[in-house]
Amino acid sequence: MYGYNGKIAVVDLTTRTIQEKPLTPEEAQKFIGGSGLGAYYLVSHFRRYSKGTAIDPYSPENPLIVTIGPYTDTPVPCSGRHAVVTLSPLTGIFAESDIGGSWGVAFKRSGYDGLIITGCADSPVYILVDEGQVSIHDATQYWGKDTFETYEDLKKATGGEVTCIGPGGERLVRYASIMSDGKDARAAGRCGVGAVMGSKKLKAIVAKGNKRTSVWNKQNLVELVKSLIPQIRQGNAGMTRYGTSGGVLTHESYGNFPLQNWRLGRWPEGVEKISGQRMEQTILVGRYYCHGCVIGCGRKIQIREGKYKGVEGAGPEYETLGCLGGMCLIDDLEAIAYANELCNRYGIDTISTGNAIAFAMEAFEKGLINEHDTGGVKLTWGNAEAMVEMVRQIGERVGFGKVLGEGVRKAAESIGGLAMEFAHHVKGLEFPAHDPRAFNGVALAYATSNRGACHLQAFTHPFERVVKIPELGYEEPHNRLAVEGKGEFVAKLQNLMSMVDSLKICKFVFNGGIQVSHLTAWLNSITGWSMSPEEFMETGERLFTLKRMFNVRYCGVSRKDDTLPPRSLTHKRIGEGVTVNLPPLGRMLSDYYEYRGWDEMGIPTKEKLETLGIADLF
Amino acid sequence: MYGYNGKIAVVDLTTRTIQEKPLTPEEAQKFIGGSGLGAYYLVSHFRRYSKGTAIDPYSPENPLIVTIGPYTDTPVPCSGRHAVVTLSPLTGIFAESDIGGSWGVAFKRSGYDGLIITGCADSPVYILVDEGQVSIHDATQYWGKDTFETYEDLKKATGGEVTCIGPGGERLVRYASIMSDGKDARAAGRCGVGAVMGSKKLKAIVAKGNKRTSVWNKQNLVELVKSLIPQIRQGNAGMTRYGTSGGVLTHESYGNFPLQNWRLGRWPEGVEKISGQRMEQTILVGRYYCHGCVIGCGRKIQIREGKYKGVEGAGPEYETLGCLGGMCLIDDLEAIAYANELCNRYGIDTISTGNAIAFAMEAFEKGLINEHDTGGVKLTWGNAEAMVEMVRQIGERVGFGKVLGEGVRKAAESIGGLAMEFAHHVKGLEFPAHDPRAFNGVALAYATSNRGACHLQAFTHPFERVVKIPELGYEEPHNRLAVEGKGEFVAKLQNLMSMVDSLKICKFVFNGGIQVSHLTAWLNSITGWSMSPEEFMETGERLFTLKRMFNVRYCGVSRKDDTLPPRSLTHKRIGEGVTVNLPPLGRMLSDYYEYRGWDEMGIPTKEKLETLGIADLF
Repeated sequence: MYGYNGKIAVVDLTTRTIQEKPLTPEEAQKFIGGSGLGAYYLVSHFRRYSKGTAIDPYSPENPLIVTIGPYTDTPVPCSGRHAVVTLSPLTGIFAESDIGGSWGVAFKRSGYDGLIITGCADSPVYILVDEGQVSIHDATQYWGKDTFETYEDLKKATGGEVTCIGPGGERLVRYASIMSDGKDARAAGRCGVGAVMGSKKLKAIVAKGNKRTSVWNKQNLVELVKSLIPQIRQGNAGMTRYGTSGGVLTHESYGNFPLQNWRLGRWPEGVEKISGQRMEQTILVGRYYCHGCVIGCGRKIQIREGKYKGVEGAGPEYETLGCLGGMCLIDDLEAIAYANELCNRYGIDTISTGNAIAFAMEAFEKGLINEHDTGGVKLTWGNAEAMVEMVRQIGERVGFGKVLGEGVRKAAESIGGLAMEFAHHVKGLEFPAHDPRAFNGVALAYATSNRGACHLQAFTHPFERVVKIPELGYEEPHNRLAVEGKGEFVAKLQNLMSMVDSLKICKFVFNGGIQVSHLTAWLNSITGWSMSPEEFMETGERLFTLKRMFNVRYCGVSRKDDTLPPRSLTHKRIGEGVTVNLPPLGRMLSDYYEYRGWDEMGIPTKEKLETLGIADLF
Repeated sequence: MYGYNGKIAVVDLTTRTIQEKPLTPEEAQKFIGGSGLGAYYLVSHFRRYSKGTAIDPYSPENPLIVTIGPYTDTPVPCSGRHAVVTLSPLTGIFAESDIGGSWGVAFKRSGYDGLIITGCADSPVYILVDEGQVSIHDATQYWGKDTFETYEDLKKATGGEVTCIGPGGERLVRYASIMSDGKDARAAGRCGVGAVMGSKKLKAIVAKGNKRTSVWNKQNLVELVKSLIPQIRQGNAGMTRYGTSGGVLTHESYGNFPLQNWRLGRWPEGVEKISGQRMEQTILVGRYYCHGCVIGCGRKIQIREGKYKGVEGAGPEYETLGCLGGMCLIDDLEAIAYANELCNRYGIDTISTGNAIAFAMEAFEKGLINEHDTGGVKLTWGNAEAMVEMVRQIGERVGFGKVLGEGVRKAAESIGGLAMEFAHHVKGLEFPAHDPRAFNGVALAYATSNRGACHLQAFTHPFERVVKIPELGYEEPHNRLAVEGKGEFVAKLQNLMSMVDSLKICKFVFNGGIQVSHLTAWLNSITGWSMSPEEFMETGERLFTLKRMFNVRYCGVSRKDDTLPPRSLTHKRIGEGVTVNLPPLGRMLSDYYEYRGWDEMGIPTKEKLETLGIADLF
């Protein structure tokens, strides 16, 4: 089967047994790969092992599913990515976490399209996937090591590419990440997939092999792709120069950058000190690329003197600057860079970590917690040392880090009182660094994303301000404050991004004007299929709906959960350039369900599931 | 002190002791009477007996507070009302319940301005308030009797006016009412005040006496009032002819009347059969009046033949026709009239009862409950017999009535799954028969009322369609679908209605064009005060804020609770004449808090409490 290895490895860590099962052409066409295929395996697994309700995310029954896609290891640019799918210990619902770097390609060359890992090992192990052979090995000597050390040591020991957890995952921080590529850090950051790995006592997965992916018409693919690379590069020139952090100044200027736990309107004097532009002038020493990338948004930094001397490797991204910086009103770039490195080494999500600390700062300000609770740490706004100390406590799951490591939803529940008023999450997942009041599409996307508050599952914000996608009917960006038509717009982009997360390609290609027909043509060149752009989009709809149905059936999700925290719906932020906007979520949700053909309560109808060919799964 | 008796009786049913305490002129001016004064006593009581959190509504510590106002027993028209204030067993927050009839005047003539009842009797008792003397008597022989029988028997035995509970209150149905006037039924229907009375084993309160209320300038008052009575009568001509049920046809025509658990847009063929107009042509035999009333909205009916032969007395009101009729798609007027009589006899709220049954019908339709759960009752839409049977089961708290008698919030929690999607309540109080999608002011009022979903605490709907109140700045009714200015509009009306519920006067006087200056002038004539209309409105703000602060301090209420169920925010109803409207609640809440000078989280600021003179209470 072109574009695929055609098989999956199923690993049971309890019994230490390995099985293989085929990936059929029908399954590949229906569920593509990446998070779509992962969702299909998750649903299939739950059909067999659950009694209609969610199982404990930390139980042996919860599968950790790792998948690549048909684009992986092909000439398609920016396709060095893989997906992790599981039931999230942070949200209790569907989890998918997308990650770049080199591991996905190494895994595809090992001869598989995916791994389904169940059970729990009785002592630390790592899995080695070596060109058609899967084996389980003792990892006692790596347990306790951070992700940079683990990467280096295991790479040296095995000669393979390593994706692994750090102390955060081992200790079940609910938003622990899985990390790849060592100091050129790449993270499956969201939803706590690293904690599920930790609960299985699985320290790492190593992939190696030389099996090259077969492409149906490679020459055609290369030609299709080649002509587009210049425009992908050009559309991402700022990304190449400043990384994602180049967006800080712009996004702050109109109210998209998060400030003081989503309270403040503007903070120009602060963000000026933590922007990508400032980084370029100070600690930046280079950039790094995921496999096959033509952009290179990764920042290489080095801090040569001062308190944080010795920090070296990946610099903070836009999201990290937003969550550890703006959210905490911290304008100390080096402190953020250090905290970022700590997060990477511990293997914890910088987005959730920053949100948790900003949440705690507000609780501290309001007197809901005090120094007695925090072990003497003064959690005041702008206190960089306190932020760094909290990152440490969360990463090691000690002190007040035990509370914050549960995520803001559970932390707010345990603190009680007014804390629920400023715990920013949807369905348990903390907000990324995009304010839903700045984009009505982001508001609706946060409310309806299958993994909770997520800017990537719909990725609307570029398409609401700068990027056009005429093939979906948007000759111009969809006005970010528009209400009319926003339901359809968000649904279409969710369907598209469901494909992107399954093919496995970086969403930054859209900055270069990539359209649905390009993605479809590439896929057909790889697989030999003759999918139309309409079928491509319908497949995306199938994948998105499949995940929704998992949440509906096993996690009790419905319309009542498709909401935003009260501050996002009622609190006006004031500042020059910030348009006051409170997203009218109810109206947009109504339009959205209607467009999707779901019922009033946000449940896909039987007819819709039949049209999409997934009725038999539910 | 003109307009007041100047004293309160404090009854402890556990120790069977009675104390008196003065009502000072300062307290009277600050808290007026009725529910305002009740809220002041409730807060004072909680300051002393609670540890900063709510106490169990059924515990001896929860006070049941009964109050009248300065208008009571004066020439002010439509002032035959009293108030009951307590912590609600239905909502767990502040409860006030307003009731008409004859009891309030009898109580004022007994020499008190209020009763604070704490403790629990060890066997059934009634309280007799007899011209300055309060005594506790055995009520064993009345326990188990319905409210009509109890009223008749106790009136005969004591010669006083009786307000009492029925089996609903005795058995702790969470929305049990307290009933007055026997077959000319008047109900303190909302929030389960009857269940608190039941938990105290207090069957009835009897009031008698001949102490006439002193009025500072009676001649002036009579003159002021006399000239306005014709316009009050004229503005309520429809109310006199058809009762509140005269509104059914009109309200249904534009989407205000509740249908099929808040799902359907129109049902003209159904409402035509249950309207006040139809009632006039069939079962109506007369009307009845509260003390001092010049309108007479009470319906006297009689069913002379058929299945419901023997029903006699109070006919169903607009709210009852909405909740037991439209909500359940029942178009059998006689069945509704019978169910209404059952509710009155059992002493259970027709609004909550109807909501609970409609909720159960939807759960039945969706297969969340079945005949096994309901003991064989087919809870299908339009099934009048099933509705009547459920009223019986709720009133007697047997069978599935045990579940529904907990209110829709708890019922939905116990049924689980999708049931939360269609449990229509705010803060635990079921919706009255006005659709928040038909009036943005009603939406905001439901979300912010201090007792949960309530159309009376702000009483905006007449002022959003028909009635003008130029003295508050509204030369025309405030457009019901307007968003701009709705926060201020609702806050102002809540402040005004807080006064109305404390003076004790029927809100229908506003249909006659009564303005703030009229109410103020009447109050000054009674008391000898020289309150300005501005001070009058500020007093209203004090009372509303006092109740909010009770909820904030003792019940954990904040912005997160000021919301509406998802269907009200997202479900469009379609029908001729029904404008599709989904209230943009977030924006209106934001404006509302801002106008009120509350903080972003809906908490009155320290400065605001100081301005209003109630900071020392919190």
